[in-house]
Amino acid sequence: MKKGLFISFEGPDGAGKTSVLQGLLPKLATFGMDLETTREPGGVAIAESIRSLILNPENTTMDDKTELLLYIAARRQHLKERILPALEDGKLLLVDRFIDSSVAYQGFGRGLNVEDINWLNTYATDGLVPDLTLYFDIEVEEGLARIAKNRHHDVDRLDMETVDMHERVRQGYLSMLDRYPDRIVKVDASQELELVIADALAVIVERFFKN
Amino acid sequence: MKKGLFISFEGPDGAGKTSVLQGLLPKLATFGMDLETTREPGGVAIAESIRSLILNPENTTMDDKTELLLYIAARRQHLKERILPALEDGKLLLVDRFIDSSVAYQGFGRGLNVEDINWLNTYATDGLVPDLTLYFDIEVEEGLARIAKNRHHDVDRLDMETVDMHERVRQGYLSMLDRYPDRIVKVDASQELELVIADALAVIVERFFKN
Repeated sequence: MKKGLFISFEGPDGAGKTSVLQGLLPKLATFGMDLETTREPGGVAIAESIRSLILNPENTTMDDKTELLLYIAARRQHLKERILPALEDGKLLLVDRFIDSSVAYQGFGRGLNVEDINWLNTYATDGLVPDLTLYFDIEVEEGLARIAKNRHHDVDRLDMETVDMHERVRQGYLSMLDRYPDRIVKVDASQELELVIADALAVIVERFFKN
Repeated sequence: MKKGLFISFEGPDGAGKTSVLQGLLPKLATFGMDLETTREPGGVAIAESIRSLILNPENTTMDDKTELLLYIAARRQHLKERILPALEDGKLLLVDRFIDSSVAYQGFGRGLNVEDINWLNTYATDGLVPDLTLYFDIEVEEGLARIAKNRHHDVDRLDMETVDMHERVRQGYLSMLDRYPDRIVKVDASQELELVIADALAVIVERFFKN
């Protein structure tokens, strides 16, 4: 029995969505719901093990469908162990990446069939979709420049992708924005962080906490 | 371009299918095709990593759909790295477990929807099915007794299943035998090993090497 609110954060690396999510927490705390944050892939032990497998730079021969199926398996476990319990507890749950990342990256990015990915997402989630998805939009070059500037992790397998791929991922997000206009709201992530946080907060308040 | 022959070996643990597979090798070597053997889940490095994750006894909270999706991911990688190259090389390929294991164990055994599993199998294999499947049939109690007697590995997560589950798995295999009579052939695995090997060999020769 779902009683909480589920907001997913989507967009390319470099859009700052993780920083926005952290910046929103003190502001959202004033609305009286318990907050919980988590991320995909990972968030629970089994899914973190799957994440390690996906990101391991030694796995250079990983097939695109294998990669997708591993993300979907991690999603399933994370849903059962983390998302559903939080929603049943009535929490306001902020999730860094969810179903749309698979469509954007494995579908538009790598060229796997999008309807197949939708089938897999529905299978893994039993049809659960977020109450709201914030899509943090940024030009590809700007996002990549930010990653290069702020890099504080070692290069993983997924960093080695091409600019073309990132462009296709962005087109994927924009296409989903057209397809699911009631669920997905675009936020201009090219602004200063505080302004992005303010815009994201305004969307959430308008949707759920307006009197 | 598939030029080889693909034979899968199916049945419960304890039916002796792995021993039969090994026993067949010297006999099949006389028919002039290069032989290759492999197993699921595993068979290639990425799939073996997925296998370890599935079988890890610490992963007690693994959801049934997560487990299925991991098997399917391992199947995909094994297909791309091992099965397709062997068949393109014209080999006679013997595979210990394939698509039917998912239907028997995760479908009939754990109660996941069989048509969903068929969809996932087709997605992972691009529709490739074995040229022949040998199903090694044995009464559940007899299979379990053999496992207890011959045990030479530590208890893993999947050993902790109930007799009821093993009974459902067998019913699953028998149901697939009805559904795919042209592909699956039943071998009586309750006989002495040499007789089981002889029966399996007879089926293979009849199907592929009869003049």
